[in-house]
Amino acid sequence: MTEAGVSALIGLGGNLGAVAERFAAAQAALGSLGRVRGRAPDFWSLPLGPEQPIFRNSALWLETKLPARQLLTALHKIESDQGRQRDLRWGPRTLDLDLLYYGDAISYDSNCRIPHPHVRERAFALGPAAVLAPEHRDPEAGRCLAALYQETRRDIMEALTSKAELRAFRKRCTGRLAFVPTMGALHEGHLSLVRQARELGDHVLVSIFVNPLQFGPQEDLARYPRDPEGDRRKLLELGVDGLFEIESPAMYGAHHETRIVQERLPRHLCGLSRSGHFEGVMTVVAKLLLLASPDVMLLGRKDFQQTVVLQRMITDLDFPVELHIAPTTREADGLALSSRNAYLSPEQRAQACCLSQALFAGERAFAAGETDPRALERLMAAELAQARELVVEYCTLVDPNTLDARSGAARAGDVALVAGRLGKTRLIDNRLLGAVADPRLPDPLAENP
Amino acid sequence: MTEAGVSALIGLGGNLGAVAERFAAAQAALGSLGRVRGRAPDFWSLPLGPEQPIFRNSALWLETKLPARQLLTALHKIESDQGRQRDLRWGPRTLDLDLLYYGDAISYDSNCRIPHPHVRERAFALGPAAVLAPEHRDPEAGRCLAALYQETRRDIMEALTSKAELRAFRKRCTGRLAFVPTMGALHEGHLSLVRQARELGDHVLVSIFVNPLQFGPQEDLARYPRDPEGDRRKLLELGVDGLFEIESPAMYGAHHETRIVQERLPRHLCGLSRSGHFEGVMTVVAKLLLLASPDVMLLGRKDFQQTVVLQRMITDLDFPVELHIAPTTREADGLALSSRNAYLSPEQRAQACCLSQALFAGERAFAAGETDPRALERLMAAELAQARELVVEYCTLVDPNTLDARSGAARAGDVALVAGRLGKTRLIDNRLLGAVADPRLPDPLAENP
Repeated sequence: MTEAGVSALIGLGGNLGAVAERFAAAQAALGSLGRVRGRAPDFWSLPLGPEQPIFRNSALWLETKLPARQLLTALHKIESDQGRQRDLRWGPRTLDLDLLYYGDAISYDSNCRIPHPHVRERAFALGPAAVLAPEHRDPEAGRCLAALYQETRRDIMEALTSKAELRAFRKRCTGRLAFVPTMGALHEGHLSLVRQARELGDHVLVSIFVNPLQFGPQEDLARYPRDPEGDRRKLLELGVDGLFEIESPAMYGAHHETRIVQERLPRHLCGLSRSGHFEGVMTVVAKLLLLASPDVMLLGRKDFQQTVVLQRMITDLDFPVELHIAPTTREADGLALSSRNAYLSPEQRAQACCLSQALFAGERAFAAGETDPRALERLMAAELAQARELVVEYCTLVDPNTLDARSGAARAGDVALVAGRLGKTRLIDNRLLGAVADPRLPDPLAENP
Repeated sequence: MTEAGVSALIGLGGNLGAVAERFAAAQAALGSLGRVRGRAPDFWSLPLGPEQPIFRNSALWLETKLPARQLLTALHKIESDQGRQRDLRWGPRTLDLDLLYYGDAISYDSNCRIPHPHVRERAFALGPAAVLAPEHRDPEAGRCLAALYQETRRDIMEALTSKAELRAFRKRCTGRLAFVPTMGALHEGHLSLVRQARELGDHVLVSIFVNPLQFGPQEDLARYPRDPEGDRRKLLELGVDGLFEIESPAMYGAHHETRIVQERLPRHLCGLSRSGHFEGVMTVVAKLLLLASPDVMLLGRKDFQQTVVLQRMITDLDFPVELHIAPTTREADGLALSSRNAYLSPEQRAQACCLSQALFAGERAFAAGETDPRALERLMAAELAQARELVVEYCTLVDPNTLDARSGAARAGDVALVAGRLGKTRLIDNRLLGAVADPRLPDPLAENP
């Protein structure tokens, strides 16, 4: 024990109620037992045992003069002050405080086992401690926490809720970072992007931010679907390393007035009905790229114009990131996955497949030799007309680089795009012409050159 | 000697005529003597000996089976093919080829001294070789070139003429990078920024790019002053590590259409007469920041609105860079230094000091108790009226954050700004109110909070 006390590393966990607030309360209470040297970032983890909410975990470094057993008693007192019931072994918990390490002490006392018996095998305990005190030596293993954590299965996901936390996460990434920006309400299309990110990067970062800048005043910002708990669980199951979740006031300062604009690309297609939409998209993606500085960013091809606009922005402004465009994921009847599909009534859902069917019809006709772009558009429009409630916004064949309507003969690589409204729900879809051998059976891999 | 041959490191230098083209010709010629493994970036260096142009230097890694003496003879042949005269010891040279290293050979033959007798003491020889082949071992010193170069006085400056070279330079920087963006025609104001950059960073990068995007169609883009040789010499004398010089077609792609805009700040002051100017400034600075990713960027306070606009952009888009605003450098009569001062006729030059005199008069009146912003503006306007030819563009007192005209009482920290035209030359200047104790003697340091 030095004069300053012993370095105790305390694990924090919880999955019931306002856990982040309980962590703050625990930190304040621990402050009276010694000097708090630091607090780890928070990490999400999947629960062990029965079905229950996912856990939030952290660690705290306390320099204290309390003997280990007294410290443990004090931890139990803080737990019960925060409403902890100690009956269910695997049950949900308001607050769990574990004494992970007490200096280099080793104790086999069954009431006060040190180091904590599971610390080295559970990433949700070891991870936060290793980030907080990487040089701390595990007295049983005889190695530092950073080295031990290197070898652990990292089934935890860092909870990044501020720009500073995101930057700190980035600094700790030792390899290639792959990034998937989303607005949450994650569906299989997003998850497919995340799986590809796993292939392309050593670390995977996902952001969930419903960006007000890209919604028009008449659009669905307020009712945009949200499912934070479900999203976190899905991303944990895919082994994502960091999840950046932030709300608008923390993302945009009060005096924010800078935007990124383009002269031509946003004036086409969706830009016609969604004024300012692509400026909002470019601005938020620029911010995310500058905060996270990923090596590769993944986007879905479903938002085709968005991919073109963002690739243009990346090239024009010299963002040091590679863009990877992933194929569209579809339901069995061809409907492109979209968070907004959740809005559709059963009747609307039945009609929604007309968008993809129109595109497939266009592809088939092109494969069969039709190259008149206007004829292809008429043919697709006829398919769209089958959806009784659908109000078509556009149905067109364009040059994939300029987004201008194709003049002259259609060629392989041109893009057919459709957009329309079913009730209040706006749906879009697209296909590259000539990308697949048999357009009756969409081949998503071939869509990704 | 391996089967592939010996690794020879050849130094290239020259300061007469089209040296870059001669380097390319030498590289092509050397290709017939073995396999060229790589070429170092180019570096500028100050000449030794009598007054003459600055030198361009590089190094080439040749794997060859030629014996050293035959290689040396071949090098002399290439030199004379490129017009080299071997008479003047320190004279200007079209092309100088030196055999720096020949594998790990050591030779004291006075006609073929290996390693080259001066290689370790001259950064212009050692630097390019060390960047090209950092692991190559100097057989006399018994250490690798990277380690030897670490200890050399680095009086050379990397010639960065492409985005790829700039990114490679950045990757090699081991410490904090300080960056000064300029449009060239460097004067003492720029040099003062560079000296401060030296204090703030371990490495100093300067860019020279006359950015067409920030010039209006009626403005002086075509006749903007240029002095590349003089600029390079000044920056070499200040110990700058890298100079990024690029022309517009290489900076902006053919399909460039992305710009950065702001809602409010660019609508004030200079923005009123220079439509699109600040969009052009923001766009190019965003590109430079993304290419160079400096830790700190230095700007002069003379372009006050520019500093406010760029700080806003940096904050709004989360650029990970610190902005350092340096005080304005002035002539003895108070005129703020500007590359455009070179346009002034002697009569105009005499009148030009009225801008700073007007600002100093405003400062004196504020220090003496005048806080009515309109009264201060009238007082400054009266000073400006002394310059017979001056067409005043604005003369105003503003809030330094919003750039709105100050309403209510003037306060310390407000900014007085003036702009006007003397003939075709547009001049601007500004002062912070209350920044100096005695405004008759401008104290530039106090201007920098």
